Amino acid sequence: MLIEGRQHRSIWFDAAADRVCIIDQTRLPHDFSIHRLRTLEDACEAIRTMRVRGAPLIGVTAAFGVYLALREDPASLESAIRQLRATRPTAVNLRWALDRATRELSAHTSMGVPSAKQVGVPSVGVPERALEFALALAEEDAACCEAIGKHGGEVLRRLWREQCGQDRPLQVLTHCNAGALATVDWGTALAAVYKAADAGVPLHVWVDETRPRNQGGALTCWELRQAGIDHSLIVDGAAGHVMARGLVDICVTGSDRVSASGDVCNKIGTYQVALAAQDNNLPFYAALPVSTIDFDWPSAEEAIPIEERRPEEISLASGIETGGREMQVRQYSGETVVRNYAFDVTPARLVNGIITEHGVFKANRNSLAALVGN
Amino acid sequence: MLIEGRQHRSIWFDAAADRVCIIDQTRLPHDFSIHRLRTLEDACEAIRTMRVRGAPLIGVTAAFGVYLALREDPASLESAIRQLRATRPTAVNLRWALDRATRELSAHTSMGVPSAKQVGVPSVGVPERALEFALALAEEDAACCEAIGKHGGEVLRRLWREQCGQDRPLQVLTHCNAGALATVDWGTALAAVYKAADAGVPLHVWVDETRPRNQGGALTCWELRQAGIDHSLIVDGAAGHVMARGLVDICVTGSDRVSASGDVCNKIGTYQVALAAQDNNLPFYAALPVSTIDFDWPSAEEAIPIEERRPEEISLASGIETGGREMQVRQYSGETVVRNYAFDVTPARLVNGIITEHGVFKANRNSLAALVGN
Repeated sequence: MLIEGRQHRSIWFDAAADRVCIIDQTRLPHDFSIHRLRTLEDACEAIRTMRVRGAPLIGVTAAFGVYLALREDPASLESAIRQLRATRPTAVNLRWALDRATRELSAHTSMGVPSAKQVGVPSVGVPERALEFALALAEEDAACCEAIGKHGGEVLRRLWREQCGQDRPLQVLTHCNAGALATVDWGTALAAVYKAADAGVPLHVWVDETRPRNQGGALTCWELRQAGIDHSLIVDGAAGHVMARGLVDICVTGSDRVSASGDVCNKIGTYQVALAAQDNNLPFYAALPVSTIDFDWPSAEEAIPIEERRPEEISLASGIETGGREMQVRQYSGETVVRNYAFDVTPARLVNGIITEHGVFKANRNSLAALVGN
Repeated sequence: MLIEGRQHRSIWFDAAADRVCIIDQTRLPHDFSIHRLRTLEDACEAIRTMRVRGAPLIGVTAAFGVYLALREDPASLESAIRQLRATRPTAVNLRWALDRATRELSAHTSMGVPSAKQVGVPSVGVPERALEFALALAEEDAACCEAIGKHGGEVLRRLWREQCGQDRPLQVLTHCNAGALATVDWGTALAAVYKAADAGVPLHVWVDETRPRNQGGALTCWELRQAGIDHSLIVDGAAGHVMARGLVDICVTGSDRVSASGDVCNKIGTYQVALAAQDNNLPFYAALPVSTIDFDWPSAEEAIPIEERRPEEISLASGIETGGREMQVRQYSGETVVRNYAFDVTPARLVNGIITEHGVFKANRNSLAALVGN
């Protein structure tokens, strides 16, 4: 992604300093700050406190966390996986990345299928192998997101040609941040926007603020400004209103977990966006790497863990005071009972398509099964 | 309403000091502060900056504003009406109260139907008459809201008996603040909650935060705590999620303007609440005085003015810092384009009933026409 005119990624390895670097997303939009991860605990803390967030980026950060753990103790694989897995319960890419890391690193220490006992057996070169794996995963994620952008961009380009002609920009509504900041590079929903813009499609993006962490207002707006894409910020409650006013052509979000039937678990509020899209006959798409599809989750009928986060994320607000200092203010009484659900599930019946690195698929069991059959 | 165990209203006249008093709602929940209105400009400022808000309370405040204007200049009726009318464009109760004030005060100065010229003709006793009118309107609003509460409370009590038995509390979801703070006393949606509680119905209220002014988090939670009603605060995007989880029995909101066909204009985000209610087969009701029905607005097909407020309401957050001082912090870059729509329209097809002081009516033309036929 372009940041102040220079190409950047959300996470990278600084080989000279032997450190993992991330953009500290808790400091945006006020401060573009690089944060260094030196230990497993640094990686866990960065995921838990959302210095990094977004399902794909969490997965890649976890892979780097495995490296940081094994660098200190080559026998610590099992406990590192356990600690990283516990950081956030809903995004399936975290589990997927850690399962892959386990397989890769166990295979390195034994020839056959790894048993639970073999996992974590120390081996010379294991840290190096873990670093190679994390670096490869990061490259894979960037390429995967660029492919998502290609397929999603084509959806936008076609819609623009059909509905807007040369007359007006295509109006895209998005929720949360499913941009380059949610992945290693490119993003998922916003990758489609970037690729469509590259193909000459004029665009305007409606950005939902996305309470309580304000990823829309703080991250998506920042990212779109850096990319030079026209956009407007609205409160979450206004998404239905701008759709009803005829100001939206399509809704595109990311996802943290998709069921085998095409139900989309994503940032809290996504379900209401999809309902409003349906009520206004607008297409609703989710864009995600195939690794976000959880074939162990049959459908929305079956509950998955929905993370509940600290009440303070709602009752305190962060920002900068007039002197430029970052600080928090209390908006609501500490006595107020707050329920801070972080995700919701949009049923497949409200989803017009799942945009992946392999193309656009219908949100149903057969279509998604064919995808992994490939 | 009870505040720290004492009966209070949102607006009242202090005869000894010859001043209009309001609860300054911009200071809640941090500080319970009484604000005094001495001039027409004070009244306009209080409405514009939302020291008072809520359609019924705006109407009553405007009536007191007329008194404050005429007290200074008995010939200023016409210009006072014009200034008050310009403060907020969407709530119809403001227009209704000012039209009534015009009729009352013109009638006092001439025997026939007042002409435009006669409006504003100075007359001995006009300020006193304006005060009488404002006081009567305040009494009328309190009685009207209590009647809304009676009818709405019965809706809740019946639903509780049918669906919850003695087993569990009735779960009510509300958006914004349609409580005593939005009216002179009792409220509209919350009047139903208070009356049901008085009738022995155990209740739990889900309170939408209601960005950007946070009337849910700041006002409704404060009001429910004062009243001893169990409640939980959620972000606006979580309303659909708690409904999908089976944690809601009914949604009830207020309204700022209802069309002759039963479409409900209310705080931004209400439309999405109604969509989620429909998708989960839950009843959605709006509670309002008949004065909120605008028979000049045929239906949602026809646009009404939707107030757009300052971007800073979204990009700045207000609260208290650790030292206890109230302050604002900037959440988003000043460069971000913000569209701050204050209201949306929920089509009548999503509304199960309109709760008024005269009973509960279907959200359609015939039903509402019968209401004024009475």
